[in-house]
Amino acid sequence: MDPRIREHAEIIANSIDLGADDDVVVVAPPVAEDLVVALNELIGDAGANPLNLYTHRGGRPARAFLRACDEEDFSPPGHRAAMVEACDAYVAIKGDQNVSEFGDVDPESLAAFQRAHRDILDERLSKRWNLTQYPGPGNAQIAEMSTEAYENFVWDAINKDWEAVRDHQAQMVEIMDAAEEVHIVSGDTTDVTMSVAGNPTINDWGKHNMPAGEVFTAPVPNSVEGEVLFDKPLYNEGKEVLDAYVRFEDGEVVEHAAAKNEATLTQILNTDDGARRLGELGIGMNRDIDRFTYNMLFDEKMGDTVHMALGRAYEDTVGEGNEQNQSAQHVDMIVDMSEDSYIEVDGEIVQRNGTFIFEDGFGD
Amino acid sequence: MDPRIREHAEIIANSIDLGADDDVVVVAPPVAEDLVVALNELIGDAGANPLNLYTHRGGRPARAFLRACDEEDFSPPGHRAAMVEACDAYVAIKGDQNVSEFGDVDPESLAAFQRAHRDILDERLSKRWNLTQYPGPGNAQIAEMSTEAYENFVWDAINKDWEAVRDHQAQMVEIMDAAEEVHIVSGDTTDVTMSVAGNPTINDWGKHNMPAGEVFTAPVPNSVEGEVLFDKPLYNEGKEVLDAYVRFEDGEVVEHAAAKNEATLTQILNTDDGARRLGELGIGMNRDIDRFTYNMLFDEKMGDTVHMALGRAYEDTVGEGNEQNQSAQHVDMIVDMSEDSYIEVDGEIVQRNGTFIFEDGFGD
Repeated sequence: MDPRIREHAEIIANSIDLGADDDVVVVAPPVAEDLVVALNELIGDAGANPLNLYTHRGGRPARAFLRACDEEDFSPPGHRAAMVEACDAYVAIKGDQNVSEFGDVDPESLAAFQRAHRDILDERLSKRWNLTQYPGPGNAQIAEMSTEAYENFVWDAINKDWEAVRDHQAQMVEIMDAAEEVHIVSGDTTDVTMSVAGNPTINDWGKHNMPAGEVFTAPVPNSVEGEVLFDKPLYNEGKEVLDAYVRFEDGEVVEHAAAKNEATLTQILNTDDGARRLGELGIGMNRDIDRFTYNMLFDEKMGDTVHMALGRAYEDTVGEGNEQNQSAQHVDMIVDMSEDSYIEVDGEIVQRNGTFIFEDGFGD
Repeated sequence: MDPRIREHAEIIANSIDLGADDDVVVVAPPVAEDLVVALNELIGDAGANPLNLYTHRGGRPARAFLRACDEEDFSPPGHRAAMVEACDAYVAIKGDQNVSEFGDVDPESLAAFQRAHRDILDERLSKRWNLTQYPGPGNAQIAEMSTEAYENFVWDAINKDWEAVRDHQAQMVEIMDAAEEVHIVSGDTTDVTMSVAGNPTINDWGKHNMPAGEVFTAPVPNSVEGEVLFDKPLYNEGKEVLDAYVRFEDGEVVEHAAAKNEATLTQILNTDDGARRLGELGIGMNRDIDRFTYNMLFDEKMGDTVHMALGRAYEDTVGEGNEQNQSAQHVDMIVDMSEDSYIEVDGEIVQRNGTFIFEDGFGD
């Protein structure tokens, strides 16, 4: 087995604080079997108990079930609920032979399935949990990379000293937690300001997502002004939206365009009122993620980028007394900040061309 | 997908009486994913809910866990127990890339694991359940068959009209249920008599094992007299015992020998008192199983064979007031009945050279 798989497993075990007598659920597609093996070894070492499941949010068995079922009939599955309730920790491993496996699943069925599983998902999120990625050939393909090059990419992004990452990112959290107004400029296509006053910034250093590597908060919904060109592709419901452009007035999108699949962007914006406002501002800080790979678990942590999400804000990024943007959507979109760009906080530039104020080379 | 896989799945669904709202657990190794897909399709069709698990009694993850754990620490896993308790039906699919995957697992660890899971196993056996086989390459290899030839073998043995099988086998159950003494002769190496008086005979037509295809009962423990040469190989704890020979007096093995690995046979017999007595007499009736494949799920149902098990008798094969043989062992061993052989019940020959009294060609 590739030794990087055992290292990956160690990082997951640390992230969930694996300990004796823990009842651990591991969910993975067959293509990720090596990582399941490595995790089972650590679970055995720890005196804990594994229960290994096939993924139900991708892959051929789930696709077969979703196509066959009648969404009217959906009931929350009792065996899955009982298992999640009884477990102490939950590891979900993504990984695909073919990322289009749900390409002929009716979106209505999928939505009904997700509604039926909502309580189970909430229960799972109340446990120790981690969501991670195994480098499957389908994931490599959509990134337009060979399987071996993609393996290198995934394990470079994951296998690192996460406590050092935590300390590094804490410097940006400190700046953002004190911030009133954030101003983001990239080339002559993005120039946007927003208030984050009173909203906490979260340090994502590997407790729930692996790879981690971002800090994120919520803009005050009505405060956003200006325009943004999301120059990294947006992949939504199987459609690729290129060069999505939005202009905000009083926090609301009043103009939008795209170079490809503009109708998809329009559809997102028309979902509900909250879908026309921002719910998240995130700053990608994982420089081992040095390319866009059509996988949001990686893309949103990419170094030298910021992302903004149209739609719902996370509860823990909204300060007491502040408004939480509500929506059925939460659509992340990414702006390249590597060149001709800066982030300004309360009048002070804190990142220029991707380099932070607390890093060597800032101001060169 | 091979259409025989969908047919196999239909047969499993029938065997567990799959119905709306059933919470179904499917346990399978990754090599059997096609059958998991086909079952998930039927589970969706039925309005039931699947939960797909990796096997924990074979395969690489289970081996990694069993080697890493300390068997002193074993506790019954709460998440697995909760899931089994909450489920309505349970399908266990065997299938191997490599049947020797547990070759370097300490038998003590495996035994401790099985002890920790005993209550969960009992709970599972109280549900609707089926145990079946997917034709993995490792299973083909130990049978010394190509993968394709082995696939034909497996699906020929499984994909058939099981209600017709039930009716055919019922004729032999009727004979055995009325029987007092059974006398089995094969060549000049096997000549044994035993009482089955008062012990019910079970018709195995596919409710729990797939393939099915045997009828079986329990001998009265002290009644067995004579000698048996098991001329099909016995595979026990990774050792192949050839031409196992036993001689019974008053039901007890008083002499034994083997052409290869006699020590393994000795070890089985020395486990406890019950291991020196018979716990089962079975008659294989599935003629599509026409060869020995080192897989007891198939071998014991092979046409033109009988099998006897040293050790524990199944409770439902012991009549009220009769003694149930008790042992930690239950080791099935097989005698070829295709030539120069007969089964005599209360003085009447009911099978000669593999052909039953109720079949064409009997007496030719």
